[in-house]
Amino acid sequence: MSVDSRRPRVGIIGTGAIGGFYGLMLARAGYDVHFLLRSEFDTVAREGLQVKSAVHGELSLKPVQAYRSAAEMPPCDWLLVGTKSTGNAALGPIIRQAAAPDASVLLLQNGLAVEDQLRNVLPDSLHILGGLCFVCVNRVAPGVVAHEAFGAVSIGYHSGPANDEARRMAIVEACAALFKTAGIDAPVMANLQQARWQKLVWNVPYNGLSALLQTSTGRLMADPDSQALIRALMEEVVQGAEACGHTLPPGFAQHLFAVTESMPDYRPSMYHDLAEKRPLELEAIYARPLAAALAAGFDMPRVRALYQALAFIDRGNRPASEE
Amino acid sequence: MSVDSRRPRVGIIGTGAIGGFYGLMLARAGYDVHFLLRSEFDTVAREGLQVKSAVHGELSLKPVQAYRSAAEMPPCDWLLVGTKSTGNAALGPIIRQAAAPDASVLLLQNGLAVEDQLRNVLPDSLHILGGLCFVCVNRVAPGVVAHEAFGAVSIGYHSGPANDEARRMAIVEACAALFKTAGIDAPVMANLQQARWQKLVWNVPYNGLSALLQTSTGRLMADPDSQALIRALMEEVVQGAEACGHTLPPGFAQHLFAVTESMPDYRPSMYHDLAEKRPLELEAIYARPLAAALAAGFDMPRVRALYQALAFIDRGNRPASEE
Repeated sequence: MSVDSRRPRVGIIGTGAIGGFYGLMLARAGYDVHFLLRSEFDTVAREGLQVKSAVHGELSLKPVQAYRSAAEMPPCDWLLVGTKSTGNAALGPIIRQAAAPDASVLLLQNGLAVEDQLRNVLPDSLHILGGLCFVCVNRVAPGVVAHEAFGAVSIGYHSGPANDEARRMAIVEACAALFKTAGIDAPVMANLQQARWQKLVWNVPYNGLSALLQTSTGRLMADPDSQALIRALMEEVVQGAEACGHTLPPGFAQHLFAVTESMPDYRPSMYHDLAEKRPLELEAIYARPLAAALAAGFDMPRVRALYQALAFIDRGNRPASEE
Repeated sequence: MSVDSRRPRVGIIGTGAIGGFYGLMLARAGYDVHFLLRSEFDTVAREGLQVKSAVHGELSLKPVQAYRSAAEMPPCDWLLVGTKSTGNAALGPIIRQAAAPDASVLLLQNGLAVEDQLRNVLPDSLHILGGLCFVCVNRVAPGVVAHEAFGAVSIGYHSGPANDEARRMAIVEACAALFKTAGIDAPVMANLQQARWQKLVWNVPYNGLSALLQTSTGRLMADPDSQALIRALMEEVVQGAEACGHTLPPGFAQHLFAVTESMPDYRPSMYHDLAEKRPLELEAIYARPLAAALAAGFDMPRVRALYQALAFIDRGNRPASEE
């Protein structure tokens, strides 16, 4: 594997399943990767990071350039943000401390308008890119990520100092090159909003139903009633996207359905968030798409019902101290 | 309390919360009541029945005329059926054994078309009446029922040898008189199908959501998202009823919503069915109303989504031997 001569410095903000997986892959490809951690700092500083991958085998990184605080990190050219979208409003100071003056911040999150939240708390000098991860990963223990399938990251430019299209594409291409060097497919997205809607066609049914019904994709795909519900939810999201001006490729929902049928059994992140009593990413994955579609004149009744049920569960799922 | 001179004989088929409550009330009013039991026979034969009522205080009946088998019961003039609708297809032989030749069978169940199922397995000589219970009761231990609120039974004629309206009304009035003598309000329903749809406006949201979200009416009514979901589900059922030709009273859903707000905290039967791994009454409360409305040209998207989620849960909730 080759390494850029300049050896870009990459910061990982939030070393969970997503941050841990991509950070380790980039570090193994020779990039200078620095990891910000909280509760898992001690374990990772002592034992390193591991990815148990069904695709790549058992991978490990040791020692890890691990930090407890963004203030201790060197200025990074690229920041990959793998935290939950529920915490985006608080990311401003963290990212400012870890970013080089003209850094690019790649937000590896699901849902709509997550970049807008970040834009509000970051200086204009930083580029914000959106990244959509098509990957099945789970954090199985401190510093240990299980990688079950796929891996691609689709990347698009959101906002920042690059005002002309050529400059924006150059930054997106440079970001994609980082991943490609590490053996990760990284398509460039011409239309970030449309791509976010396309990802929602998967996230809306599978994330929500896995949490609501306490189950995995395999069981959801094996039951005729949950199958029918998934198809109906997907269809609503496709219609919501169209109402918002995004014409998805023909047969797109059916394609995602078929991909999921052939996928290994998987518990999406919202299942784990519920089980571990973390806030669910309901704003980004449900509330904002619902509001956007409704503003365009289209309600998504089943999506809204699912959102309301999840909001009820989420409210009752917080540790007592947060209530 | 007065007793009819002829002293009608009443059989209770299924002595759970509903059968236990009404059977005990009728027996205490002086009727000759005989109770069919299964798993709770020994306890009830030995210790009697108890109703711990927030309305009437602590009531008990001892000894109880209890039976393990319908074949041992004397011929009853009235049969009150309080079993789960999921078992209706198997009720034919049981009811035939316990019924006097011209008996009336009052089916105390929720949902649509439950009487049709029973009609298919009973001789033409028996009258079938439908009863809608507006009561908060729960079986809290073998032979012990908690009665938390309300109590009325609305009664309508379904089918049988009474071919003219006067005769049908006479039977319904006689049935209502049984309950009224026992201090239970028993309105007569002119239109059983419409009344069943009206009851569904309550059952569809509260039964299903209490099971799906593992919660009680009080918590559902305290959360803005579940409140909104309840209102949306109610509205769909009202529209489904209208599609099927039943115009509900203006403001009916809002009325039920307000009644539930003022009710003591309650866990509907489907919550308990799920918790105790009994089959959920999805056919009667969801599948048949959905099919009836769809046949009339109206889909109920949120009701269908709720049904599909519950069907998924129900399938995974059976004891291993049933799978």
